[in-house]
Amino acid sequence: MSVTVQDDDMDIKIPNDVNVISPFSVFSPSVEDPTARALIVLNQSLKNVPRFLTVWQGCLIHVCADGGANRLYDYFDSEEERKQYIPLYIVGDLDSLHKSVREYYERHGTRVIEQATQFATDYMKALMLVQLQLYNPTIIKGPIDTHDEIEVLYQKHIVKNLTVAPKLNLYVFGGIGGRFDQTVHSISQLYKTHEIHPSIQQFHITKSEMIFLLPEGSNAVIYSNKTAFNSRDRVPICGLLPLGSGEVELTTFGLKYDVTDWPSSMLGNVSSSNGVSGTNGFLVRCRKGPITINIELAFDP
Amino acid sequence: MSVTVQDDDMDIKIPNDVNVISPFSVFSPSVEDPTARALIVLNQSLKNVPRFLTVWQGCLIHVCADGGANRLYDYFDSEEERKQYIPLYIVGDLDSLHKSVREYYERHGTRVIEQATQFATDYMKALMLVQLQLYNPTIIKGPIDTHDEIEVLYQKHIVKNLTVAPKLNLYVFGGIGGRFDQTVHSISQLYKTHEIHPSIQQFHITKSEMIFLLPEGSNAVIYSNKTAFNSRDRVPICGLLPLGSGEVELTTFGLKYDVTDWPSSMLGNVSSSNGVSGTNGFLVRCRKGPITINIELAFDP
Repeated sequence: MSVTVQDDDMDIKIPNDVNVISPFSVFSPSVEDPTARALIVLNQSLKNVPRFLTVWQGCLIHVCADGGANRLYDYFDSEEERKQYIPLYIVGDLDSLHKSVREYYERHGTRVIEQATQFATDYMKALMLVQLQLYNPTIIKGPIDTHDEIEVLYQKHIVKNLTVAPKLNLYVFGGIGGRFDQTVHSISQLYKTHEIHPSIQQFHITKSEMIFLLPEGSNAVIYSNKTAFNSRDRVPICGLLPLGSGEVELTTFGLKYDVTDWPSSMLGNVSSSNGVSGTNGFLVRCRKGPITINIELAFDP
Repeated sequence: MSVTVQDDDMDIKIPNDVNVISPFSVFSPSVEDPTARALIVLNQSLKNVPRFLTVWQGCLIHVCADGGANRLYDYFDSEEERKQYIPLYIVGDLDSLHKSVREYYERHGTRVIEQATQFATDYMKALMLVQLQLYNPTIIKGPIDTHDEIEVLYQKHIVKNLTVAPKLNLYVFGGIGGRFDQTVHSISQLYKTHEIHPSIQQFHITKSEMIFLLPEGSNAVIYSNKTAFNSRDRVPICGLLPLGSGEVELTTFGLKYDVTDWPSSMLGNVSSSNGVSGTNGFLVRCRKGPITINIELAFDP
């Protein structure tokens, strides 16, 4: 167990046999990139969220969870722009969705699916809906009972058919930084979704951070260079956050404070205020379980 | 294992043999209240934080962690008011503290203690300093080496003298809702401080929430009535958040969604979007470990 203080910049050789994650490619999508992407908007302000429209344009499926649709509506200053960003679905108990916003999006082709159950959150409802849509849209084509049919269909078609889950990058806006129980719920969903469907990689994007899960095993987080996510003239801050249940043992290469065989848990070591040194990527090996990472985003206006 | 949906309001009989926590008494302190209280300001805006000055006035010791002093300075519009709220200490690596703010507070009697080590956060430095000050201020009266002497003294006098730790309510501003690794670090400190010194109860206060730990065992959170922390005309929202390592088994009475023998973990059940139904308090029994709770604050302006 050791900690090594690294230079602010270091070139990293990316090994062949690691899980490669490319979280920031969504900010400058290329035509050849075959990654399937979806987007969920939750009920938190989108103002000042960097590159929201770029991420939207890179996604195949767009779902607003309840009041998330209000936030999408409010994001735009001009009707000309607003009408170009129409979600496929609005789903939730609909206790937050404004009537005028509902009518606007229905008029523009959005399907609004009420799911009244209080035993799933609007975020969970959106997550299940995205997976159903991606797996087989015909399942949800007909009428859907307003209590909890999305969950029933999800259990039947997705959970019981684990092998078919397609690879998907899912970008979530509004899940972190609001009410604290909602933030923790979002993080819990990172772990639970990963456990059920390791092929789905969720990325939470806030005004100033990207937050995602690094699975158990050896991972490489790669990028063309640090300006792909952070244009400030100092080391971008990051943290390795042991928010699953139990201890994770970490070995990293390419961080400002690299660790080796370092046990991390909420009651022990937590690597906060760390930094990204790797100029093209960094490596994180997790033993015993996955770990949550946050990375500071900063774009030139 | 069960969940019961309760009325929005219910009177609770508080048993005698429970750990009683009274988090909101700090918002309307009475002269007779013997609780020792201290306050830490971290580097996040204090604007719109409810009742900050009331909490300050109820505390014996006030410490700013590094740039927290800038936030304290900026909180006040008038010099007349500013000079009445002078922290005893400013501590940290001092990379964020503005020179003019440092000079201002030094001129008004604050002691600035530089601790350069990067292996403790400014928040940890403040936590250790508060405990030293409360235990025996003479220990830190003389010159203090600028690298990590606070931690050395803390290890020597506090950690090795566990039995002497006095009962203390510690109110922390700026620990939750900023950069996500700092938020997680703050929560980790809740658990770690509780493990070393169960007599210290930390309360994080944000613009709209109070967040604290409910220890293992039977707890009663009490208040005169719900308007003591939330004046909105609906059930105040709360969450029970299993952020320590491992599973906690919960039984509650007085919440909107009461649970019985309910296993909670980040990979399993998380009680988010719950509510406070008890008109005078509520009960939470934790088996296997403590749990974090967040409760929505809302005061009439």
